[in-house]
Amino acid sequence: MDAYGRDKEDLLVRLRRIEGQVRGLQRMIEEEKYCIDILTQSSSVQSALQKVELILLETHMRHCVTAAIQQGQGEEKIKEMMEVVRRFSRS
Amino acid sequence: MDAYGRDKEDLLVRLRRIEGQVRGLQRMIEEEKYCIDILTQSSSVQSALQKVELILLETHMRHCVTAAIQQGQGEEKIKEMMEVVRRFSRS
Amino acid sequence: MDAYGRDKEDLLVRLRRIEGQVRGLQRMIEEEKYCIDILTQSSSVQSALQKVELILLETHMRHCVTAAIQQGQGEEKIKEMMEVVRRFSRS
Amino acid sequence: MDAYGRDKEDLLVRLRRIEGQVRGLQRMIEEEKYCIDILTQSSSVQSALQKVELILLETHMRHCVTAAIQQGQGEEKIKEMMEVVRRFSRS
Repeated sequence: MDAYGRDKEDLLVRLRRIEGQVRGLQRMIEEEKYCIDILTQSSSVQSALQKVELILLETHMRHCVTAAIQQGQGEEKIKEMMEVVRRFSRS
Repeated sequence: MDAYGRDKEDLLVRLRRIEGQVRGLQRMIEEEKYCIDILTQSSSVQSALQKVELILLETHMRHCVTAAIQQGQGEEKIKEMMEVVRRFSRS
Repeated sequence: MDAYGRDKEDLLVRLRRIEGQVRGLQRMIEEEKYCIDILTQSSSVQSALQKVELILLETHMRHCVTAAIQQGQGEEKIKEMMEVVRRFSRS
Repeated sequence: MDAYGRDKEDLLVRLRRIEGQVRGLQRMIEEEKYCIDILTQSSSVQSALQKVELILLETHMRHCVTAAIQQGQGEEKIKEMMEVVRRFSRS
C-alpha cells in the first residue's frame, strides 16, 4: 500500500533539511561556538523531527489504522499506535 | 455513550492518588524540604498523570474514534486526536 | 537554609490550584465528560506542574548550586541537577 | 574558552551517527517502509539528539556557568540556562 504517498515528497524535503541542520550542528561544534547557541539549533532540529513524526502518524491513522478498523481488525493497530504515542510522552 | 466505562474506577483511583501526591508536594514546600526531592516527587506526579492520559486516549481510540471510522466519519476524530498527540510531543 | 523562601507562597498557591484541577479531573471522569475535554484539562495540569518545577529548579540554581560552586563544591550539585534536567527531557 | 574541549570528539562522533540515521530515515521514506518502523527509527534519532544536548548542557554548567558564578556574575548565565531547560520540558 502507498501509505504516505501524498506526503512523500514533503517528508523527504523536511528530512533533507534536517540532515543539513545536523551537519550545521557538527560545524558549530568544530568551530567551538557558544553552547547555548548550539542547544538552540539542536532544539529546532528536534522540533523539525517531531513535525515529521506527526505527519507520519497522522497519515498512518488516516490510512493503515482506518483501513484496519473498517475491516474489523483495528485492535492490533491501535495498540501499536499507542506504543508510539507513549514514546512521544514522558512516561 | 459510556466512553471509558470499564476504566472509570481505575482512572478515579489514579486521580485520587495524584491528588494526594499534590498535597504531599504542598507539605514538602511548607516544610521547606530539599528542592531536588520535591522535583523528584513532582516528576512522579507527572508520570502518573501521563499514565491517566494514555489510558484515556487509548479508550478514546477504541470507542469514539473506532465508531466514527466505522460510520465513515473518522476524519474529524482523527484531527482532534492528532491535536492531543501534538500536545504530548515537544513541537 | 531558606532555599525557596521568596517563592514559597507563590508555589503553594500554584500547588493548591493544581490540587483543585486534579479534583476537577475526577469530577469530569465521574460525569463521563468527553475524553478529549478531559485530556485538554489534564494537559493544563501538566503545564502548571512544569511551571512549578521550573520555579523550583531556578531557585535551586540561584541558591544551593550557586553557594556550592562558590565554595568550590559545585561538582555534586551539578550532577544532581543534570539528573533532574534529564528527566525533563525524553531520553 | 575551550568550552566543550574534552567532549568535542565524542559530540562529533554522535552527530555524524545522527546524520547517518537521518539519511536512513530518508531511505525508509523513499522505499515506503512501514510508518511505525520509521517512527521507531525517528524516536531513536530524537533520543540521540537529546543525549548530545545533555552533554552540551552539562559541559556548559561545569565551565561557563561555574566560571560566571565564581566571578559573581552567575545571574545572566542561570537565566539563559533556565531558558534551555524550559525548552526541554513541555510548558
